[in-house]
Amino acid sequence: MSEDGTTGRLRLYMSMSLDGFIAGPDDGPGRGLGVDGEPLHAWLGGGGVDPGSHRPAGAGANTRVFDEMMSSRAVITGRRTFDYAGAWGGDHHDGVPVLVLTRSQPDEPSAGPVRYVTDVAQCVALAKEAAAGADVMMHGASAAQAVLAAGLLDEVEIHLVPVLLGRGRRLFDGLPPGHVRLELLRSLQGQGALHLRYRVLSGA
Amino acid sequence: MSEDGTTGRLRLYMSMSLDGFIAGPDDGPGRGLGVDGEPLHAWLGGGGVDPGSHRPAGAGANTRVFDEMMSSRAVITGRRTFDYAGAWGGDHHDGVPVLVLTRSQPDEPSAGPVRYVTDVAQCVALAKEAAAGADVMMHGASAAQAVLAAGLLDEVEIHLVPVLLGRGRRLFDGLPPGHVRLELLRSLQGQGALHLRYRVLSGA
Repeated sequence: MSEDGTTGRLRLYMSMSLDGFIAGPDDGPGRGLGVDGEPLHAWLGGGGVDPGSHRPAGAGANTRVFDEMMSSRAVITGRRTFDYAGAWGGDHHDGVPVLVLTRSQPDEPSAGPVRYVTDVAQCVALAKEAAAGADVMMHGASAAQAVLAAGLLDEVEIHLVPVLLGRGRRLFDGLPPGHVRLELLRSLQGQGALHLRYRVLSGA
Repeated sequence: MSEDGTTGRLRLYMSMSLDGFIAGPDDGPGRGLGVDGEPLHAWLGGGGVDPGSHRPAGAGANTRVFDEMMSSRAVITGRRTFDYAGAWGGDHHDGVPVLVLTRSQPDEPSAGPVRYVTDVAQCVALAKEAAAGADVMMHGASAAQAVLAAGLLDEVEIHLVPVLLGRGRRLFDGLPPGHVRLELLRSLQGQGALHLRYRVLSGA
């Protein structure tokens, strides 16, 4: 059980432009934000391959949201995000389990806290079990779409960035017909991003 | 000059889902929100062809934003929006001039407060002149894209609706490469919509 007495939630964290992009075009290994996508992460601190190195300075909304994200006890990530990020050097934060949602198992076996999973429901179940009642965070557009389509996403925290990218990779794309209702739980204004937390009320 | 001493601004008002849609698929005359697009206007009051009839009840953020919109002294609209809305019965509000941005002049001449304009810059100039220092409001995705691409949009007021539509007509689509920087001026939380006002800092 988590601090507020509820079971752990699966929450997607993604920086998104007002026009819905989470990366510019031509994203790839070492350039996960693609061409001209840098404004999406301007609210974060400068850093390296270690996610924790990007903690925003100060005590404002950006830092608060970042710290909440890093207090999660398991990570689900899409394969693309994981590979582009160089596996975060082997540890996302605090050695928590990292479940990589992938279409096919890689030739190299999982190592350390990393485990590759091909089934969406199994991936979420393993992550929630590993988090032992604490929250699970997730990254990645394709993985998010898969979890959303399966009706397994509990919350979405969008870092809404005041920019129109015009092209690139969209966070919400290829959803099945039938709309998904959300409930705005919280809105926090940080420098360079408005942090919007939604509960997912109905699956796609 | 407007109340705060500045010259009138051109402000886009649009209800948009979190995934960027301003209508579901198959929008058309009398069904401007398309299939399953109704949640986009849930923050408005029920009404008819007269825009003023949709004023939200109460004195909350929804009503405040609506009243600001209806205090504008000229309207720019895209041709599609105008036609789908049945020309708002001939009067958008208070008889203010309505400039319809269109690719080709219709066979029927303009009537009453309505004027068809094919040139974007002329359309904005005419509207601002007509508003005599007060703000100009605009509706319509294609028209917004044209005005944005021309670097003539001053502000954007997005009514961000907590729903994922998954398909339909996107507000920001077909923008030329090169991102548009925005500045968040205000965030007001209403029932069923988060009203986000942005200043456009750089054109596409």
